[in-house]
Amino acid sequence: MSTGIHHVGIATKNLEKTSKIYETLGFDITWSGVLEDRDIKVIFLRNGDSMIELIQPVHYNEVNPVARFLTKRGEGLHHIAILVPNIWEFIQKMKSNYTFIDETPRRGALNYLTVFIHPRSANGVLIELIQP
Amino acid sequence: MSTGIHHVGIATKNLEKTSKIYETLGFDITWSGVLEDRDIKVIFLRNGDSMIELIQPVHYNEVNPVARFLTKRGEGLHHIAILVPNIWEFIQKMKSNYTFIDETPRRGALNYLTVFIHPRSANGVLIELIQP
Repeated sequence: MSTGIHHVGIATKNLEKTSKIYETLGFDITWSGVLEDRDIKVIFLRNGDSMIELIQPVHYNEVNPVARFLTKRGEGLHHIAILVPNIWEFIQKMKSNYTFIDETPRRGALNYLTVFIHPRSANGVLIELIQP
Repeated sequence: MSTGIHHVGIATKNLEKTSKIYETLGFDITWSGVLEDRDIKVIFLRNGDSMIELIQPVHYNEVNPVARFLTKRGEGLHHIAILVPNIWEFIQKMKSNYTFIDETPRRGALNYLTVFIHPRSANGVLIELIQP
């Protein structure tokens, strides 16, 4: 069904400063860029098989979900991303168990296909599903 | 300095119900028990190299940090745990960079030595350091 955690997502107001925290802990930056359609800046860091995704809003407004998260909860852990081999099949099988934020996968960082399970159907955790 | 993410910690008011969410996603329970000195019930789940730790307070009161977390923030992502080869050396090297909740490592689940970096020195993220 899935093959484990792909990365942990962390919301920040200062991508560079937060990146330093994980670089000090032995993580290396593997990718950075802007996801235009999500209006966020992203840094991916890796340490062995572990990945962390830092996300920062480009614009702070009511339609930017990361900006809304920061206003409501402050900086910190934002989501976990779980790797699935076939995201379409997963959605079909799981839509009776989980509420998806959007049932149509979108292209995310590193060109992966991604979809989100709503926190209200996953014990308050925002779960991203990722297909390479 | 570290060898990546050991597990992701999730706070819940219902260990069994939350466990089902991750079992449905392909995770298997590898350990469950009570950490008496922390007053929490724990379930560890594994999927490949990825681990999730579900934590629930035994008693809901002002001294139980997981109970306080649930009151303040609700259920959801609680901490990330990062594996370090030598926790004592790590604390010595890092105590000028990070504020530790307690500079003396304690025995945690699976008998690991653990120490926590305070979220205020890590961008709102509670980081647990773990030495097997």
